[in-house]
Amino acid sequence: MYDLIIIGAGPAGLTAALYAGRSRLKTLVLEKIGVGGRILMTEVIENFPGFAGGVETAELIKRMQQQVTDLGVNIALEEVLEVDCKLKTVKTSETTHSAGAIIIATGAHPRKIGVPGEDKFTGRGVSYCATCDAPLYRNKDVIIAGGGNAMAEEALYLTRFANTVNIIHRRDQLRASPILQDKLKENKKIKFTLTSVITEITGSNKVEAVKIKDVNTAQEKVILCDGVFVYIGYLPDTSFVKDKLKLDENGFIIAGQDLSTSEEGIFACGDCRNKTLYQVINACGDGAVAADSAYKYLASKG
Amino acid sequence: MYDLIIIGAGPAGLTAALYAGRSRLKTLVLEKIGVGGRILMTEVIENFPGFAGGVETAELIKRMQQQVTDLGVNIALEEVLEVDCKLKTVKTSETTHSAGAIIIATGAHPRKIGVPGEDKFTGRGVSYCATCDAPLYRNKDVIIAGGGNAMAEEALYLTRFANTVNIIHRRDQLRASPILQDKLKENKKIKFTLTSVITEITGSNKVEAVKIKDVNTAQEKVILCDGVFVYIGYLPDTSFVKDKLKLDENGFIIAGQDLSTSEEGIFACGDCRNKTLYQVINACGDGAVAADSAYKYLASKG
Repeated sequence: MYDLIIIGAGPAGLTAALYAGRSRLKTLVLEKIGVGGRILMTEVIENFPGFAGGVETAELIKRMQQQVTDLGVNIALEEVLEVDCKLKTVKTSETTHSAGAIIIATGAHPRKIGVPGEDKFTGRGVSYCATCDAPLYRNKDVIIAGGGNAMAEEALYLTRFANTVNIIHRRDQLRASPILQDKLKENKKIKFTLTSVITEITGSNKVEAVKIKDVNTAQEKVILCDGVFVYIGYLPDTSFVKDKLKLDENGFIIAGQDLSTSEEGIFACGDCRNKTLYQVINACGDGAVAADSAYKYLASKG
Repeated sequence: MYDLIIIGAGPAGLTAALYAGRSRLKTLVLEKIGVGGRILMTEVIENFPGFAGGVETAELIKRMQQQVTDLGVNIALEEVLEVDCKLKTVKTSETTHSAGAIIIATGAHPRKIGVPGEDKFTGRGVSYCATCDAPLYRNKDVIIAGGGNAMAEEALYLTRFANTVNIIHRRDQLRASPILQDKLKENKKIKFTLTSVITEITGSNKVEAVKIKDVNTAQEKVILCDGVFVYIGYLPDTSFVKDKLKLDENGFIIAGQDLSTSEEGIFACGDCRNKTLYQVINACGDGAVAADSAYKYLASKG
């Protein structure tokens, strides 16, 4: 029996664990894949306050993890299968744990385009992680789908390896921050294919081309390429609390200012919750708030 | 004419400036006293994720400031006297600035006890900053008023200098986190005077004693001491927007999830706003959210 179970060991979960550990709560952190979460799909983070010049995400996570384990908090690599929000029990791949309160910090995963060929070629030319796969595309031509900061950062990273990086975006301009857009425009390897969507990914054994359609003219064309990188947003990893907590239309958990959810004693923080900005720094801020609220909730229960 | 004026250069304001700078907004940061804000009243911060073993607050602030100035954002030492929330103009001690949007990140200041002698002896035995003044109390006996984490941290710091540190607290137990309470109990220089309030601070030229009253028995007594440190909470620095923005009963700015206030184009972040937890990490998270919301607001205006 724990005071607190934290599901997920990304920046939000680790910060919640830091605060819970300092509050002397008997805390268990459960992590499905590995400590860090999807932030590790990015190589370097430049906008975490306190690290002028940027910090490697792996290094930042290592430092956060150290802080948590220094406090004696246990991080177990177990996949959560089911949560009982009333009983506060968590069924995992290994066993069933119970606690006085639960914090959900499971983050989000990349959204798929949803076109023919996407699943077939995943791992054979279709990728959701440039940091992981970019070195496979040395001197190759790649497509990147998306319009936001994540796409822009990864497109720039891809130019270190690829011959050309062609940005396919549905709108006539990107959503990425101006500083990143300037960098994209200055980079000779970057091409722009705007007002366009991918309709199919084709090839024999591996990706050889994408079919695209202009959203204004409905004109279709084929672009030959060796790889397709997808950065069109994220969906929350909240299926295990579907029908148990109040979620928004995309499945993000709805939480109040204190990060309490629709069930007493269940809190949500980081990218799995509905909010306006999804960044490491405010995931960490969330983690501190959720742990503080869980602590107050447990204290109120005696 | 700026895109964005950020009032306050503590962790919230600096993180807002970091995000605004990366978004290429023409940004001016206004700071009344000095970059850093009230966090500098604490010597070391142990619960900022990414710094296992803790980091000196002065060092953390220096690193945050560097990140902001690296982006070319200007931090001006000017006191803000008046804000016109409709026109988005900011009148300072030096001049009047105008912008498309304003972020308020002015933080909070220590709450006074409000008893006879407090104002008279401020700077002559009464202090709101142990980090600043503790070395003046080497081998002396001091009182510290409060019950939360800030009090506990500063009481422990005072024991490095003072002979005894007597904690006066209104309730029968502290609110400080268990980890800090354990440290207090283990420290032989710490005394506890619980269920008690200070009713007067006395002396001739400097503090010589406090009068205290037991809140249960109404019994009064005098405790001789050389210094009185006050850690009984904070009040927001928001007087310049009184009657202009929606504030709570203590003057904290009320903001939505995107940190927009009751006036369009005015955003609030950090300790000056009504929220459940006041820590550096979520002040920084706030700063990122406010800058992102300001950016979106400005973009929507064209």
